[in-house]
Amino acid sequence: DLFRAITAALADGPLKGRRVLVTSGPTHEPIDPVRYIANRSSGRQGTAIAEALRDLGAEVTFVTGPADAARPQGVRVVEVETAMQMREAALAALPADAAVFTAAVADWRVAQPSDQKIKKSPDGLPMLDFVENPDILAEISQMKQGRPALVVGFAAETQEVEANAIRKRTRKGCDWVVANDVSPGTGIMGGTENAVVVVTEAGAETWERMGKGEVARRLAQRVAEALG
Amino acid sequence: DLFRAITAALADGPLKGRRVLVTSGPTHEPIDPVRYIANRSSGRQGTAIAEALRDLGAEVTFVTGPADAARPQGVRVVEVETAMQMREAALAALPADAAVFTAAVADWRVAQPSDQKIKKSPDGLPMLDFVENPDILAEISQMKQGRPALVVGFAAETQEVEANAIRKRTRKGCDWVVANDVSPGTGIMGGTENAVVVVTEAGAETWERMGKGEVARRLAQRVAEALG
Repeated sequence: DLFRAITAALADGPLKGRRVLVTSGPTHEPIDPVRYIANRSSGRQGTAIAEALRDLGAEVTFVTGPADAARPQGVRVVEVETAMQMREAALAALPADAAVFTAAVADWRVAQPSDQKIKKSPDGLPMLDFVENPDILAEISQMKQGRPALVVGFAAETQEVEANAIRKRTRKGCDWVVANDVSPGTGIMGGTENAVVVVTEAGAETWERMGKGEVARRLAQRVAEALG
Repeated sequence: DLFRAITAALADGPLKGRRVLVTSGPTHEPIDPVRYIANRSSGRQGTAIAEALRDLGAEVTFVTGPADAARPQGVRVVEVETAMQMREAALAALPADAAVFTAAVADWRVAQPSDQKIKKSPDGLPMLDFVENPDILAEISQMKQGRPALVVGFAAETQEVEANAIRKRTRKGCDWVVANDVSPGTGIMGGTENAVVVVTEAGAETWERMGKGEVARRLAQRVAEALG
């Protein structure tokens, strides 16, 4: 992998000189010093995409939550924990020619995480007030100035995958949405394969089930074509 | 480590022929197919204790949540995710001569995890109903029949460590409580060292800060003395 990273850096890939932001992994949103809310995400698809873009010559900034997958070589890695931190790191990585948002960002966070461990109390259950997290994909998709030429969102769905992806593309204002079905039966979440629907302005394409590395290479190729 | 496991199996340690249950790691409580609530726990202290007990000749059943630490060799490993599953696996591991509960079990779970990914809705925030999880330590400490001769609980505290541990011992009905201060500043949570207060019927002992392996060896030695 290091060999490929060095080769890519020396080679004249189609993304040579292009800056690409990739977000990856879950976010962890603290409840108190010992508890948090998390999204299931191994970070494998995001890592594979960062590697594939790097292999085509791109300068990749890889903003990752606490993911299990080993960090990609030959890219700039920025480690974050929460959605708020991920937003800050993503904005700091701009300007970029393209941005690929694979991270499974928590939609909500606890409004006031406790400084102290919340104890069980006799009258029972904790009251958690949630507030909405920043929508990083929508924010960067809708930038008036300095928007990356190509913004790609990911969607983890458990039903109506294509219809939800088409709606998501419009709602967020991004260029493409790559949607996958993460229902427990599929083995996709945390697994090594993916089956995606790619929604662009031209419509929806269903890719057959393949390794996450292959999804990444095809997508990186498409990014290179789009940036021209 | 494998070498030590084999050596221990062949040796006549003080815990030869003794069955010990060790729980370890966090639990993950699902919100929906992609979100969950977790406790911070690397599983390092629990793993070290299982290894130390094994090295003294015990037959260890190691019930672990989804922890980062590599699983111990030479013990029976049972992998679980939720508190409900951990309870079931712990009860299934009885009878045992001793039980050491190092796991960071979630106090609460979501009452009705959603089968489908919860979508952001215009009127905003998710309503999560929590229910209390079974208290595995209290349940096994208070068994009328088949209670392990020695039951050891762990307490992760962020304030009044000793006072909370003394109260916890009485409330749960266990024999010992090993309490540590997991405040963010200490570096203990997720780290390699621990500073514990051991509360027994005789009172509270403060152990100086030391490696988690050393805490484990001292504790295993004490378990061996207690079982006689």
